[in-house]
Amino acid sequence: MTQQDTIIALATPSGVGAISVIRLSGEKSIEIVDAYFRSIKKGKSLKNQKTHTIHLGHIINNDVIIDEVLVSIFKNPNSYTGENVVEISCHGSSFIQQEIIQLFLQKGCRMADNGEFTMRAFLNGKMDLSQAEAVADVIASNSEASHKMAIQQMRGGITNELKDLRAQLLDFAALIELELDFSGEDVEFADRTKFKELVTKITFVLKRLIDSFAFGNAIKNGIPVAIIGEPNVGKSTLLNALLNEEKAIVSDIAGTTRDAIEDEIIINGVAFRFIDTAGIRETLDVVENIGIKKTYEKAENAQLIIFLINSEKFKVKSFEFKAEIKNIKKRFPNKRLLVVANKIDTLSNDEATTLSTEIENLIPLSAKNKTGIDKLKAELTSLVNIGALSNNETIVTNSRHFEALNNALEAITSVKQGIDLEISTDLFSIDIRECLRHLGNITGEYDVDKDILGHIFGNFCIGK
Amino acid sequence: MTQQDTIIALATPSGVGAISVIRLSGEKSIEIVDAYFRSIKKGKSLKNQKTHTIHLGHIINNDVIIDEVLVSIFKNPNSYTGENVVEISCHGSSFIQQEIIQLFLQKGCRMADNGEFTMRAFLNGKMDLSQAEAVADVIASNSEASHKMAIQQMRGGITNELKDLRAQLLDFAALIELELDFSGEDVEFADRTKFKELVTKITFVLKRLIDSFAFGNAIKNGIPVAIIGEPNVGKSTLLNALLNEEKAIVSDIAGTTRDAIEDEIIINGVAFRFIDTAGIRETLDVVENIGIKKTYEKAENAQLIIFLINSEKFKVKSFEFKAEIKNIKKRFPNKRLLVVANKIDTLSNDEATTLSTEIENLIPLSAKNKTGIDKLKAELTSLVNIGALSNNETIVTNSRHFEALNNALEAITSVKQGIDLEISTDLFSIDIRECLRHLGNITGEYDVDKDILGHIFGNFCIGK
Repeated sequence: MTQQDTIIALATPSGVGAISVIRLSGEKSIEIVDAYFRSIKKGKSLKNQKTHTIHLGHIINNDVIIDEVLVSIFKNPNSYTGENVVEISCHGSSFIQQEIIQLFLQKGCRMADNGEFTMRAFLNGKMDLSQAEAVADVIASNSEASHKMAIQQMRGGITNELKDLRAQLLDFAALIELELDFSGEDVEFADRTKFKELVTKITFVLKRLIDSFAFGNAIKNGIPVAIIGEPNVGKSTLLNALLNEEKAIVSDIAGTTRDAIEDEIIINGVAFRFIDTAGIRETLDVVENIGIKKTYEKAENAQLIIFLINSEKFKVKSFEFKAEIKNIKKRFPNKRLLVVANKIDTLSNDEATTLSTEIENLIPLSAKNKTGIDKLKAELTSLVNIGALSNNETIVTNSRHFEALNNALEAITSVKQGIDLEISTDLFSIDIRECLRHLGNITGEYDVDKDILGHIFGNFCIGK
Repeated sequence: MTQQDTIIALATPSGVGAISVIRLSGEKSIEIVDAYFRSIKKGKSLKNQKTHTIHLGHIINNDVIIDEVLVSIFKNPNSYTGENVVEISCHGSSFIQQEIIQLFLQKGCRMADNGEFTMRAFLNGKMDLSQAEAVADVIASNSEASHKMAIQQMRGGITNELKDLRAQLLDFAALIELELDFSGEDVEFADRTKFKELVTKITFVLKRLIDSFAFGNAIKNGIPVAIIGEPNVGKSTLLNALLNEEKAIVSDIAGTTRDAIEDEIIINGVAFRFIDTAGIRETLDVVENIGIKKTYEKAENAQLIIFLINSEKFKVKSFEFKAEIKNIKKRFPNKRLLVVANKIDTLSNDEATTLSTEIENLIPLSAKNKTGIDKLKAELTSLVNIGALSNNETIVTNSRHFEALNNALEAITSVKQGIDLEISTDLFSIDIRECLRHLGNITGEYDVDKDILGHIFGNFCIGK
């Protein structure tokens, strides 16, 4: 499917920088820019230039120079979108960006929709749908782990896992449909044993991919952690201690707001999202009140709970600590709990040893003196199966894929039941087609609904 | 002067966008990138590629893909800096930007200082100093007029004006210095009549350029306008009415904060900076109080004062209006005053006519109904000599240039006095050299002090 119109958008972040890049795509993009480009080499026309070349000159309208620019030419099909693409690298002023974009809007371009460049790349067969979706994830990723997953997907991770299985299923589907044509004759073109093997294999792969989603989603959005503890137990000091060592990295990333820094901390390349649980103080006094309820509701969203206790109170509250830990464990049986004793420096060595003996798996530390922080970090990251990432195993991060995989699994399960029950072929051939459709939806091999495309690419930024 | 080290910086605005561009400059830049670039075409090396070509591939470190990128190659001397330059166009994620920059910082690059790319362009003779300075102005310009001036300067406006005159002065200086060598013999190598003509011409050009600064500076920073008037006379409604028609343009420019929108309004391509003069209400009641003083101090900074009167009060306060106008004119004899009658719709046609007759040059309007706004706009822009801009006349906008021009004028005036008084040649030859030095400072032909260079380029953004 080729698009006839030429789209334009600012491809770099808005705002002031040294340079900005304006991108055009469409059959006529080179022609349109050429009419308003005057090369520093007299008489040079962009139309006669090779693909992947760069040209210095001015963008000129009515003899007025808008800017000195570099123009990059990419010729169909060797471009991001698969169409003719022009990138204009101009000075990074908002005024110039607007002037150039306005000029070409008047001269036959239209403003690109969100993600339209990538949608065209998909429609022109430059990438499959799951790869196109990964482009947005690559741009949005802010930690090593989430970036790694997005790059893996952009390179075709999920496609590679499913492509071959889907092709084999398609072959069987064809044979089974053929059987239906000869339904009066009771023939079996499709080898049932091999077919069962394939169905088992597909089921296995789908389950593994579906299981990876909880992990993938957490990595993508940051693993939610709730810190529970009395006031003044040193919650913010702990957050700052965790943050401090990573500060160099975090503060280097422009656009990260102070709030975001406080909420999300990247430890050993994995993002942890710390959930604000102010209000926990009441837990220790009154059992039923709105304060606790809210805190516990929030903690419910965490994958991991840090219960922070104050070592200073060890002597007077040692028993209470144990009761509280038991209470939290009971309330959140499925969540991993880390018990951390802060202000350990206020205890003598003997006292500290006693505390560690009384409370098992205790992580003693001093947030203020920054001792014991590494142990906590190691514990936090040990909870994340980094192995999967290192092995380049495919991890599902996209909820659309998750849904499609679940639907495919449901369909293939019906197929399996059909085979097991030896029911009539025409009954489960529908399920095979359903499974094929859902798998095809992930990569976009099946004709994807326009609404779905609109939804997918609508979440992109403009210019991509 | 060639720089040995390779510098790197993000060239596009920070933050998230579709793409980001990372720029490297230095002899080894291509080599350094090549070691971590894997082309999609196997075995392709960046080192063997032609200048001004673009290459698709991955940035890879330790077998881990950081990103799929486009790499643009510019070979010495055909680049912005005149050195080997590489531009890496990566996905627009802060994480990726950081990863790539960190990689190359480890592999032999160093972070570029502010404006260091442009400084190298200057040092390598790609542009003169006034052109280099204009690059920052081009990026910062936010109105048609300021942009036009910056582009004109970047293309060598001031240089072209001064270059020839300076060369002629240099010739005379050489002849006069020669006379000094023969001082015992009373020879005159330099034709005094022609020399006087040149001095007169230089004086004329310098004066014109110096005079242009007030205008240029106002255009660059926005022409300061103070609106004075009673409370509820409709000051904000007027600002909004002026703003509204331009809103489409202003709000399209990302990064413009809401505050800035309210303060600066671009009318017919010229920026006007509206100075907040809250507190003027007291003028009408008590004469001496801090409120008025502040307001008048602020109005002192304006080039233009709009006195806004309330037509509703015409019947009761007609006389007061005239007294107030007289008072303001007396207080600010050198400022252009526009008297604007708001809420003109509350008067009958006869009353409106009477008001316009009583107060000369009155601009009647209704900010609320948006009538008469065009007249005000026309009056505002008529104050700006747009003609100079259309004729491509050189306008000085840079205070460093302004200072150098003033110094040069002072020196050339001394020269002229010396000739007129027929004083000894050796006395005014010093002044000639002074004048040459100051003119040379503008374009950087004279060896410019390192501190001055540091100051000039320190105001640039990093990556330019």
